[in-house]
Amino acid sequence: MENFNLDNSIRKIHDFPRAGILFYDITSILTDPLAFRYCIDKMCEIYKDEKIDAIACVEARGFVFAAPFAYKMGIPLILVRKKGKLPGKTRERKYNLEYGQDFVSIHESDVEQGQRILIADDLIATGGTIRAAADLIEEMGGKVAGIFGVIGLPFLDYAKVLPEYKIETLITYDSE
Amino acid sequence: MENFNLDNSIRKIHDFPRAGILFYDITSILTDPLAFRYCIDKMCEIYKDEKIDAIACVEARGFVFAAPFAYKMGIPLILVRKKGKLPGKTRERKYNLEYGQDFVSIHESDVEQGQRILIADDLIATGGTIRAAADLIEEMGGKVAGIFGVIGLPFLDYAKVLPEYKIETLITYDSE
Repeated sequence: MENFNLDNSIRKIHDFPRAGILFYDITSILTDPLAFRYCIDKMCEIYKDEKIDAIACVEARGFVFAAPFAYKMGIPLILVRKKGKLPGKTRERKYNLEYGQDFVSIHESDVEQGQRILIADDLIATGGTIRAAADLIEEMGGKVAGIFGVIGLPFLDYAKVLPEYKIETLITYDSE
Repeated sequence: MENFNLDNSIRKIHDFPRAGILFYDITSILTDPLAFRYCIDKMCEIYKDEKIDAIACVEARGFVFAAPFAYKMGIPLILVRKKGKLPGKTRERKYNLEYGQDFVSIHESDVEQGQRILIADDLIATGGTIRAAADLIEEMGGKVAGIFGVIGLPFLDYAKVLPEYKIETLITYDSE
């Protein structure tokens, strides 16, 4: 298990979502039960001695890794969604995209004061969405306990965008 | 566990996404570890003696229930997404909405010939999206092994839309 080669289970797709981008596809992990088990078990191993009260995950691919983690660890699962998707009373935070802006949204009732919350996504690239989620969680009274991504693209400088948090990934890729 | 009252963990929100609709919110299950555990364990119990080769789940709330099920059962997890979200080669199927049309999309490589696939979503209402997903899976050579929803709204007649499949739910609600 320790020597599992996750790279074999990550499909690389050129020119998605647009020309010039190499897309790391995690759906090929999901359809490979050994690879998926490796990811979830590794996540649990990384955080087993940390005090994590809840996990927040970013729509929508983040859900598939955070949900089994929450189930296995017996902690709450907080959805971080796009604006307008959550039905209850929410708090929002704006962030910049390459072209334009977007919002992350969390249910007000989902974050408790002082709760130590791990933020998870499938892939960490520029860190922009996670930065917005982290700021929103802290603004709501939670404490960001760490950042997890199955895949990390450190050449896109996410570490500079999230300097105060410990970022864990299962695999990283360099610039092409 | 058998007597767990799931209704207590489902938040009801009036007039979402629009006036006159009573929305059954499953995010209040996700933030309640006992309720979430109950749902996943019940799913596994229902299907433990069935031959299920894979689980397909509908974007995005379906992901959070299907992912722990796939992890626990050690079977592939197939994402059913909106058009344009999956990076690989996909097959699509159109379905009608109240106003207009939409598409469900599945990676071609995700469905194997004769594979017995359970389709899961958080809530089954009219059954329109699941009908499209089921037709697409069968068209791609898979066999729909059953339909699962945490919540069912049988008064919206999903059983008539999916007459040939066994539909399992953990809780149903009648018309207001």
